[in-house]
Amino acid sequence: MNPTETIAAIRADERFAKASATLAAEHDRIVRDVVTLTEIPSPPFGEEKRAAAYLEMLRAHGLDEVEQDEIGNVMGLRRGFGNGDILVVAAHLDTVFPAGTDVRVRREGTKLFAPGVSDDTWSLAVNLGFIRALDAAGIRTRHDILFVGDVGEEGLGDLRGVRHLFAKSRHRARFRAFLTVDSPEVAQIVAGGVGSRRYRVTFRGPGGHSYSAFGLVNPMYAMAEAARGLAAVEVPKSPPTTHCVSVVSGGTSINAIANAVTIEVDLRSASAAELDKLDKRFLQIVDEAVATENAARSTSAGVITAELTRVGDRPAGETPAGAPIRDFAAASVSAEGYTPSFEFSSTDANVPMSLGIPALKVGAGGRGGRAHSLEEWLDVEPQECLRGMRTSLATILALAGMEGIG
Amino acid sequence: MNPTETIAAIRADERFAKASATLAAEHDRIVRDVVTLTEIPSPPFGEEKRAAAYLEMLRAHGLDEVEQDEIGNVMGLRRGFGNGDILVVAAHLDTVFPAGTDVRVRREGTKLFAPGVSDDTWSLAVNLGFIRALDAAGIRTRHDILFVGDVGEEGLGDLRGVRHLFAKSRHRARFRAFLTVDSPEVAQIVAGGVGSRRYRVTFRGPGGHSYSAFGLVNPMYAMAEAARGLAAVEVPKSPPTTHCVSVVSGGTSINAIANAVTIEVDLRSASAAELDKLDKRFLQIVDEAVATENAARSTSAGVITAELTRVGDRPAGETPAGAPIRDFAAASVSAEGYTPSFEFSSTDANVPMSLGIPALKVGAGGRGGRAHSLEEWLDVEPQECLRGMRTSLATILALAGMEGIG
Repeated sequence: MNPTETIAAIRADERFAKASATLAAEHDRIVRDVVTLTEIPSPPFGEEKRAAAYLEMLRAHGLDEVEQDEIGNVMGLRRGFGNGDILVVAAHLDTVFPAGTDVRVRREGTKLFAPGVSDDTWSLAVNLGFIRALDAAGIRTRHDILFVGDVGEEGLGDLRGVRHLFAKSRHRARFRAFLTVDSPEVAQIVAGGVGSRRYRVTFRGPGGHSYSAFGLVNPMYAMAEAARGLAAVEVPKSPPTTHCVSVVSGGTSINAIANAVTIEVDLRSASAAELDKLDKRFLQIVDEAVATENAARSTSAGVITAELTRVGDRPAGETPAGAPIRDFAAASVSAEGYTPSFEFSSTDANVPMSLGIPALKVGAGGRGGRAHSLEEWLDVEPQECLRGMRTSLATILALAGMEGIG
Repeated sequence: MNPTETIAAIRADERFAKASATLAAEHDRIVRDVVTLTEIPSPPFGEEKRAAAYLEMLRAHGLDEVEQDEIGNVMGLRRGFGNGDILVVAAHLDTVFPAGTDVRVRREGTKLFAPGVSDDTWSLAVNLGFIRALDAAGIRTRHDILFVGDVGEEGLGDLRGVRHLFAKSRHRARFRAFLTVDSPEVAQIVAGGVGSRRYRVTFRGPGGHSYSAFGLVNPMYAMAEAARGLAAVEVPKSPPTTHCVSVVSGGTSINAIANAVTIEVDLRSASAAELDKLDKRFLQIVDEAVATENAARSTSAGVITAELTRVGDRPAGETPAGAPIRDFAAASVSAEGYTPSFEFSSTDANVPMSLGIPALKVGAGGRGGRAHSLEEWLDVEPQECLRGMRTSLATILALAGMEGIG
């Protein structure tokens, strides 16, 4: 069977119909779970409380080896009947919102409003719904499925949860594929992991009075040289590769040459090789900018130096065209009447992609918007949610090897 | 008589000896006055309390037409016997220290430590000493002498006190010369007023996500282009002319193209013509930088603009070599055994210099240091103070036309 046929077979199976019926019947419970979890704050580097609650939920769902790892991820295994190969199905516990953010959920009709409700708390609740649906339908899979609530997906979390999972988990040698269920939309499948390198660069110099010390090297100009240097770097459109000098600060007084000027820089590419190339070029640009300024003005009171700190490093990767995981996911999206597209983004799937393990970001169903803003919302209209959930459930079953199919 | 002879005649006069003896005898009182005035906080744009106290002191010294003008300067006239031409003798009331700074004076031996004690509170007290010395010696002058305690000399005060005096005072048509007594040192005479133009420039653009909006114009790069443009502008060594991009800030997040980046820029010259030229060039550079960035990247989401605010404007000027006021001051410094030098700086004297009125900055006597820092100090060792006070008093008498001399 080709992937389209496999998905068709899964969807035609009465156990899948039973699982779908369970998801429909349990809609209110899934919504209650997302409200409960959303209202447990889970700021960057502060996921403990939500992790503890989710750990208990995984345990209550009868998974095996339910545990929390050293970095804070919580997980449990749904055993398969095969040789112990594992499909990882993850959703992330963290939000972008700092501690103290009002995370109470407001409901208007079928819309829930709250920071983090759709990115990615909804998926945590939906994954629990998948477990109950599989159990209710008596569906067994060849592979084990490791359900994970992971930490550190957002921003400076720098994917540390999934990074740790693939580096340290005792299960890691058995990981065969990875799905992160992240945000509601199912049609846009993320198959390209945009990698990033992020730097903070501080240019330092002797400083001095703007008038009486005129002619001394000025870290402002080294910064300007580096910024313009990076701005001029040509990058491929495909694989998408980008750069940005994002934040700048420095200087103390209008009548003083600054002692220090700091920039924050974001470099990204869907290609690990292009990212490496861009990264090397940027480091070169910084060195050249420092040398240019030291040559342009007097160093009698001291030279310009640059201090680089790498503040982010997300691996690039891609689950390439032709990989069966892509075909299963696309077939499943199409079967539900959506038009699949493959996108590049930066998600938990970056980590397995960078290791050559088949990985995608899929959706949890429903519609959402304004993610990362205080106006974030999730529409839990039941029919639309069910279509999306069925889509990702079929993909999971195809990847995990539904008993009796294929 | 040439200036050297005039100074010699003044110093040989027994009235001058009497005035000197009075300054010596009243040393402790002058020191008491500087302590009293220093301990009345006088932050930028907050000189009211010190001004009120100084107004009463001027009144107590028997001056005529003692008053405070609209902008906050306090002043009084010591009448001459001539046609009402005026020599202005000023000291500034303001300090660089913000409200809340501990301004209590600590004394160690002959040294007084306190913010503002030498720049310029000491001169306020010494000028009162001059009035008492002239009175005690029965010295009359041809010109009236307008003793002024002025506001707004420092930083963003932008010379507003003396600017107002020369623009609005009802006496202004009679101003013939101007001395600002500023800080202790008498040997370094300031005869060149360094002018400055100060700008805050905000570059704005549409902003956007560093990855998904890559290719949009970025105000960071317009800023960098402008900074490098200014850095490359060649300026004459003489008259001294300088430029500096001093302060920068902008951007909100490492994964966002900034909406706005702001720089603060300091342009200075001892020549009004060079300052104008530099100013025009800078405005051109900003325009060019904006145009360059709008041409370099996409303006589909909006263009880069620059918003300029002039935050400082101090006129340049010079009391040129050959001006009698310079010769009187130099002769007086030499007569006391010091080696005179003429310097460029930015002081209250900039304003009359820019108007072509003979003007200098002279010293109050004694020694001081660490001005503009919390460790500012003033050494009131009596002999050194007296030599300095005699120096500036002789200059005042030469400029005001001491009765019976010349």
